[in-house]
Amino acid sequence: MSTATDLRVGVVGAGIMGADHIDRLSRTISGAAVSAIVEPDAARAAAAAQTAPGAAVFGRIEDAIAAGVLDAVLVATPGRFHEPVLAPALEAGLPILCEKPLTPDSASSLRVVELERKLGRPHIQLGFMRRFDDEYRALRELVVSKEAGDLLMLRGVHRNPSVPDTYTESMLITDSVVHELDVMPWLAGSPIRSIEVKHPRRNALSPERLREPILVLIELENGVLVDVEMNVGAQFGYQVTAEAVFQTGIARIGQPAGLQRWADGAFRIAEHVTYTTRFARAYDTQVQAWVDAVRDGSLVAGPTAWDGYLAALACEAGVRALTESGPVAVPSAARPDFYA
Amino acid sequence: MSTATDLRVGVVGAGIMGADHIDRLSRTISGAAVSAIVEPDAARAAAAAQTAPGAAVFGRIEDAIAAGVLDAVLVATPGRFHEPVLAPALEAGLPILCEKPLTPDSASSLRVVELERKLGRPHIQLGFMRRFDDEYRALRELVVSKEAGDLLMLRGVHRNPSVPDTYTESMLITDSVVHELDVMPWLAGSPIRSIEVKHPRRNALSPERLREPILVLIELENGVLVDVEMNVGAQFGYQVTAEAVFQTGIARIGQPAGLQRWADGAFRIAEHVTYTTRFARAYDTQVQAWVDAVRDGSLVAGPTAWDGYLAALACEAGVRALTESGPVAVPSAARPDFYA
Amino acid sequence: MSTATDLRVGVVGAGIMGADHIDRLSRTISGAAVSAIVEPDAARAAAAAQTAPGAAVFGRIEDAIAAGVLDAVLVATPGRFHEPVLAPALEAGLPILCEKPLTPDSASSLRVVELERKLGRPHIQLGFMRRFDDEYRALRELVVSKEAGDLLMLRGVHRNPSVPDTYTESMLITDSVVHELDVMPWLAGSPIRSIEVKHPRRNALSPERLREPILVLIELENGVLVDVEMNVGAQFGYQVTAEAVFQTGIARIGQPAGLQRWADGAFRIAEHVTYTTRFARAYDTQVQAWVDAVRDGSLVAGPTAWDGYLAALACEAGVRALTESGPVAVPSAARPDFYA
Amino acid sequence: MSTATDLRVGVVGAGIMGADHIDRLSRTISGAAVSAIVEPDAARAAAAAQTAPGAAVFGRIEDAIAAGVLDAVLVATPGRFHEPVLAPALEAGLPILCEKPLTPDSASSLRVVELERKLGRPHIQLGFMRRFDDEYRALRELVVSKEAGDLLMLRGVHRNPSVPDTYTESMLITDSVVHELDVMPWLAGSPIRSIEVKHPRRNALSPERLREPILVLIELENGVLVDVEMNVGAQFGYQVTAEAVFQTGIARIGQPAGLQRWADGAFRIAEHVTYTTRFARAYDTQVQAWVDAVRDGSLVAGPTAWDGYLAALACEAGVRALTESGPVAVPSAARPDFYA
Repeated sequence: MSTATDLRVGVVGAGIMGADHIDRLSRTISGAAVSAIVEPDAARAAAAAQTAPGAAVFGRIEDAIAAGVLDAVLVATPGRFHEPVLAPALEAGLPILCEKPLTPDSASSLRVVELERKLGRPHIQLGFMRRFDDEYRALRELVVSKEAGDLLMLRGVHRNPSVPDTYTESMLITDSVVHELDVMPWLAGSPIRSIEVKHPRRNALSPERLREPILVLIELENGVLVDVEMNVGAQFGYQVTAEAVFQTGIARIGQPAGLQRWADGAFRIAEHVTYTTRFARAYDTQVQAWVDAVRDGSLVAGPTAWDGYLAALACEAGVRALTESGPVAVPSAARPDFYA
Repeated sequence: MSTATDLRVGVVGAGIMGADHIDRLSRTISGAAVSAIVEPDAARAAAAAQTAPGAAVFGRIEDAIAAGVLDAVLVATPGRFHEPVLAPALEAGLPILCEKPLTPDSASSLRVVELERKLGRPHIQLGFMRRFDDEYRALRELVVSKEAGDLLMLRGVHRNPSVPDTYTESMLITDSVVHELDVMPWLAGSPIRSIEVKHPRRNALSPERLREPILVLIELENGVLVDVEMNVGAQFGYQVTAEAVFQTGIARIGQPAGLQRWADGAFRIAEHVTYTTRFARAYDTQVQAWVDAVRDGSLVAGPTAWDGYLAALACEAGVRALTESGPVAVPSAARPDFYA
Repeated sequence: MSTATDLRVGVVGAGIMGADHIDRLSRTISGAAVSAIVEPDAARAAAAAQTAPGAAVFGRIEDAIAAGVLDAVLVATPGRFHEPVLAPALEAGLPILCEKPLTPDSASSLRVVELERKLGRPHIQLGFMRRFDDEYRALRELVVSKEAGDLLMLRGVHRNPSVPDTYTESMLITDSVVHELDVMPWLAGSPIRSIEVKHPRRNALSPERLREPILVLIELENGVLVDVEMNVGAQFGYQVTAEAVFQTGIARIGQPAGLQRWADGAFRIAEHVTYTTRFARAYDTQVQAWVDAVRDGSLVAGPTAWDGYLAALACEAGVRALTESGPVAVPSAARPDFYA
Repeated sequence: MSTATDLRVGVVGAGIMGADHIDRLSRTISGAAVSAIVEPDAARAAAAAQTAPGAAVFGRIEDAIAAGVLDAVLVATPGRFHEPVLAPALEAGLPILCEKPLTPDSASSLRVVELERKLGRPHIQLGFMRRFDDEYRALRELVVSKEAGDLLMLRGVHRNPSVPDTYTESMLITDSVVHELDVMPWLAGSPIRSIEVKHPRRNALSPERLREPILVLIELENGVLVDVEMNVGAQFGYQVTAEAVFQTGIARIGQPAGLQRWADGAFRIAEHVTYTTRFARAYDTQVQAWVDAVRDGSLVAGPTAWDGYLAALACEAGVRALTESGPVAVPSAARPDFYA
């Protein structure tokens, strides 16, 4: 066997998402290896370590940094624990792939941005993985190419079969719509001006605490109107689609694909039932792009901490829109040259 | 040849739509014949009469009635000429198939309703042909069956390649969205509570007088939320689709069908470019259903004058919504037993 | 009601197919009425007569002719009873729409052809309804247009959920593949040169008497190769498709269409389960075209008795091919000018 | 950076396929690095080495072996050069991923098999990458599950836009159909009994030396009938599909997927134009599976040298079938326990 120079990645958080990333880095990604698992829950850490035998286990990020075993950090804890991890990692000058959200609110996100700016250039890539999905990318290329003329509308659909007991009404925005708040402006090349929420008939099969589905109307600064059906009690499966209305044509992504069957009087194609299969390749592509960027010195190959801050601003307006009628303005924030 | 007892239909108006109906009644519909063409423009009347050799030509509906050649009337003039035709036809006790709209406004529609009520039972069927489209019918059956649970949302798309010079901004509502204002409540089994219009980025390829496309948000009284993309400068083709969000699943109609081709690096299916092909069968089915209903004495087999009045009320709110922000309430109007 | 001059059609045979045609002529077709039902089984005749109140009932075609109530004849009896009906109808000079097959074998078909030739021009239209299916027609237009270059191959699929107890091995050819033996040469513009049958693994769920599915290889005189999967125990549904391989592209017909649903982890579209829905419109179009042709004096608007004779020749070769290995030649028969 | 133990792979052949594998091993595959490039053409070797900076360049495999820089070998030269590479690599006891074909004929393939058997267990994985395609795998799972009953027929389509000048008639079998000769028996779980070739109308746009497309009929020993349309002048794009006929249903793979567009009166989806995009993921999955197998000591994770020998036997019969009429028997060869 050779002694190649793999990127030594410390994964912070060994829950479902973290364990998934540890497995991905160990078995799928080229040029990286998990050198450290940072997880205070010892049982979890031990379980995750089984797929990354070479990794040391730490209870705190500071200890992993001190041990000198990290070239880069992948943060996969819940969002409320991000800032305490990002701060020491940034202070150590480490490149970071941080699962969304950057932090739970815009104020803390701005603090992270300020901390990062001291490093002279961006070190944080944010895990909005849709930007790495083949179809979202193809759609963006179509927008940029102007082949179908100007983009006029974007119409998104995000349907989950169900959500866990811990899922609250505001998470419709902060946990689910947040993906649209990043990817739609990215597709359209324009930031968000306002957000409004409309309430269709409530799904009586959803938990009583959730008034859903909702229809979210998002105005972008260039005039493009985005509407998103956010539906977390759809039961039939997991589905994320987008339709773009251009001046001279239409484009649509997220449609059924794969093995086609005829049985029992029907033609059918399996639909996804979870994001882990729907976006499996997007996660792989995202992490590979990040590893490649860190190895070649560019550090970041996707959405930045600034995009995380913008998403936090939009989420705050979106949460207000859940209970206010009419559009809620999203504060405009000019992108600093630092993040150009 | 036999001497069968075909329904003698007088067609009022021999423009594009009227000529199409004359041809349909003469060549496609079972049990009916065009006995009269009522059209003040003599050249038009003569041209249309060529496909209905047995038809007499009249300049005014009153003369056709007086001539005793009518068992029923099909009204295909522009909407502003409907009331003066409907009035004498109703007075003569004739069954009527009236192209939409019933009349251009709710006040005149209500006058027609009052006139009809004197006849003791409905005599007017209104030409909202979508209710006769196979796929809209299948979707309604799914709603009624509750097989996928309650209906929560309806999402409509209506795209035209372009519109003629005579098409004005308010016609986005009164000429185009009006179909949705009838068919969506019919699908959902609930009348309209309010209408709101959102403006995406304007299509710079559309005529300057038109601020379009628009996104129309329609609340129904049962809580179902309807959104409709109305787009009359879509250029690529003619497309009418609907997507229904249920408690446990989704349904979609209006998708590409027919001969599939592979050529030049692409798979493709022809899309419609005009409503005349998209709804060809719906028109046939509608007129056949009406002819059958008149012959068997039931007189009406579809939307009534009351549905026309409701659509007029909704259109008036919709036109206001084009320039007002926020939802515009649609007056509620309890359906009289007469139209139950 | 008017006294229009509807075509007086005598329907011979009031089984499933005959009853269906009686209903169609009475309720769907423009310009025709059922004036006579010819059916020896009195109960059947009475049942069918309920949908055609003006029709007289006869036990024999000769009596209906003698009664002078026929302008034209639609023959819907089993094929072995066709010749005794066609002969007197031809002698009476009546136009005929005859369900396939023309007769059960080529010798009797040739006798019918000879009889018809005495009338100076074709009077028989044969009920190969696929030629009136919208998609088969679109495919033929594509072939004729040469838009995709020359046609090289045709690939047919004919799948039935199951067949009745009366269905025998040879009926795979004479009852089912016979449609392909007419429509494929029609699509390709070339007669059949030979037929060969290959036996895949037998479907153990099919009745023991049937060795099926089969793969039928048909060479046309212009070199186009046709293969047809004939499968009468497919269980999942009824499916008829065709794929055409051209020099520069591919075309395909018969794919799933209509309302699309998502439920239980799958996207699905209902598939047909019977030919009556799959070809409902083709039957309507066929009968309307025939009625129009008879009324305008052209008498025939589709496949002729000669096409029936060619199909009989091909069926005889096809039945031999069920048990012989290698291609079985189909006798060539130059189309007489009479049928040009 | 860490000093992980990557598998040191020597890639033999740096043509299009070899360069592609060098790039894949360097940038996509986890746990492997290109340690040697074996290529007599110095310019080619230098070009390929740019994507694998750590790789040494050799003119002969023997030298690379002697240098002690190889843990495993990936052979990507043309098939006629395989045996002289496989022999020394086997003698050195190295695990090998060998692009198809194993060798150009069954006699030489058998020699390789004999050589390999001396090593006590299989060391060669053969590059029939379709077995690693997600959809082929899903189809095989369906076969194995018996969920749709027994498999009765397999229907393959392999269409290339065009082929290079070096492509000869026999390569229809040895270069193209060979994939079906491996994957169809694998899907059906049964070896080949005979091969027959039928000639449709020749595509006049194809080079004169090629009599194509062809229809290949393949009988498997379990009675399943396979037909394959092999078409290397299809022009419109690159398409590989399969349809499986089961007792109770149908399954189909290789259908259009990805971004959907409406433009210019048509709905469309881009079709592939080359195998490199159609099977991009299959190649990645194949090489990753092989690297993982070598690292974990199982050495082989896919088709073996024996499968290559069987394909060679089938190809020899297939080439004869190009000019002989009727089925050509394929010699049966019982799989040795060694390859069980």
